Amino acid sequence: MSAYAVGIDLGGTNLKAALVHEDDGLVDTARCPTHADRGPDFVIKQIGRLVEQMTGDAPDPISGVGIGSPGAISWERTTVSQPPNLPGWTTVDLSARLDDLLEADVPVIVENDANVAGLGSAFYGAGQDHDSFLMVTLGTGVGGAIIYRNQIFRGTTGAAAEIGHMTIDYEGPYANSGVAGAIEGYLGQSFLSAHAADRLTNHPDSKVYDLVDGDLSQLTPKVLYEAAEAGDDAATDILAWAGHKLGCVLGSAVNLLDIRTIVVGGGVSGAGDYILAPARQTLPQFVVPGLRGDLSIIQETLGNKVSLLGAARLAFEGRTAQV
Amino acid sequence: MSAYAVGIDLGGTNLKAALVHEDDGLVDTARCPTHADRGPDFVIKQIGRLVEQMTGDAPDPISGVGIGSPGAISWERTTVSQPPNLPGWTTVDLSARLDDLLEADVPVIVENDANVAGLGSAFYGAGQDHDSFLMVTLGTGVGGAIIYRNQIFRGTTGAAAEIGHMTIDYEGPYANSGVAGAIEGYLGQSFLSAHAADRLTNHPDSKVYDLVDGDLSQLTPKVLYEAAEAGDDAATDILAWAGHKLGCVLGSAVNLLDIRTIVVGGGVSGAGDYILAPARQTLPQFVVPGLRGDLSIIQETLGNKVSLLGAARLAFEGRTAQV
Repeated sequence: MSAYAVGIDLGGTNLKAALVHEDDGLVDTARCPTHADRGPDFVIKQIGRLVEQMTGDAPDPISGVGIGSPGAISWERTTVSQPPNLPGWTTVDLSARLDDLLEADVPVIVENDANVAGLGSAFYGAGQDHDSFLMVTLGTGVGGAIIYRNQIFRGTTGAAAEIGHMTIDYEGPYANSGVAGAIEGYLGQSFLSAHAADRLTNHPDSKVYDLVDGDLSQLTPKVLYEAAEAGDDAATDILAWAGHKLGCVLGSAVNLLDIRTIVVGGGVSGAGDYILAPARQTLPQFVVPGLRGDLSIIQETLGNKVSLLGAARLAFEGRTAQV
Repeated sequence: MSAYAVGIDLGGTNLKAALVHEDDGLVDTARCPTHADRGPDFVIKQIGRLVEQMTGDAPDPISGVGIGSPGAISWERTTVSQPPNLPGWTTVDLSARLDDLLEADVPVIVENDANVAGLGSAFYGAGQDHDSFLMVTLGTGVGGAIIYRNQIFRGTTGAAAEIGHMTIDYEGPYANSGVAGAIEGYLGQSFLSAHAADRLTNHPDSKVYDLVDGDLSQLTPKVLYEAAEAGDDAATDILAWAGHKLGCVLGSAVNLLDIRTIVVGGGVSGAGDYILAPARQTLPQFVVPGLRGDLSIIQETLGNKVSLLGAARLAFEGRTAQV
């Protein structure tokens, strides 16, 4: 089998592609706007074009194509259903459509984007030293992946690891999913920003006001991080509040899975220890005593690369490599 | 391989044993007091005696012995550590000790008692029609097992499915584990009884008072069930309160595992639909919309037999049958 594969990150805004060497990682990358409004036919052609471009750069024929996609993925890892931010897709057999387009006769494996990030971390990122870990992606929403013995744990329909919708307070605020107290309702980017804006009312001297030119609607977790770095107590406290909530939900996950390592990625994780240190402090308090040993929460530092590496890794691992 | 195996249920109060036919289920059973106070040597001899008794009743040599035990079980399924209610056990290699005692040279496989109940349900009980399900055991505590594709999901150290310690309210009441809002702190037998006793202060006409001869310290979930059956609104409301909490925690588990079937067993589950109907109503509200299809909560009706059947099933499945 060739040591090269192509990974695709199918996003609502951008399409990203990478040529990946199995051992050495990223060899080449490319990107273009998704133009999701032009519908699936256009987007699939764009993906095909990117794959051919990456394949042309490879010294050997590639062993396959892996695609990280939003939405629900079929158990066979061929078909995408109802991807948010991709209008008109309903259900698309992405594997078959690309098979028709591509010159090379190679497998095209599709997987949920959060799972792909987990796989990338497992083989190229912070998860490399751990056979099993829970990946949590803190971004617009809160996503997750369960990596169990170096494979993706997919659940009965391929939709496992929806950690963002686990509740930590059955009478808590409603997240977009309609779940009361779901962790996404605390740590999702818009929820965290809204919470921070409300709370800063009590802190008129916070540096955050300067960073957003007095307009708290411009507030993002990144601004909170910058203010915390500049020594702002209010911003530091808000990020610690978020970290505490993260620790609570991770405790529930550890109890259920007996997986003690958590890798945190995504944009909001850029706040690093401002969120992760309080999460580390809280986590054992929400874990049964017998499972409190060897707990660790680590940060994924590969950023977006982890998704492209994970997508290509799908091709190296093969379609049936899953738990 | 013989179609017969012996299953042992190692409890703090009683030792139970069964001769099990792979297809037909229970053939014979026996029991004796554990006398846990006499220490592990005595208890292990008692287990050996029960195994020989059951083996003697079998028409063919048995294929093995399975033991459901409290406490932490080693990954190899040989050794028990720190079983509650078994003083002096610290760490005991139950497989090796029984190997030495038993005449027949057959594998002795040890597994956590909650997991054993799940396996019994999967092959002989309410779980038979489902490849994957979450088993929840409502008794003194709240135990659990994850059955995934007809095997026990054990986690990284064999301790998965501690659903009783998952939180539904990070500022909720503390359970014995020290976890705030852990579901065991609502549904564990003593917690549910205490909650009911407090709440009945507002219902001096409840039938519960008669059932406990005016002494609310005698209150058990079984009494609540009896009162509910007799048409008592207060008892019915209390069991519905418990069912609501159960639905909340099961929602978190479904989100994480993408396992949509829940089998509920244990003594408290005897309250049946007084608890399970409200749990069914609550569950989808705590599950992300994409996973709300095909949810079901069913009752295990085999009672204690499920543990003996599951223990013997360990021998039919073999030591390495696990996820």
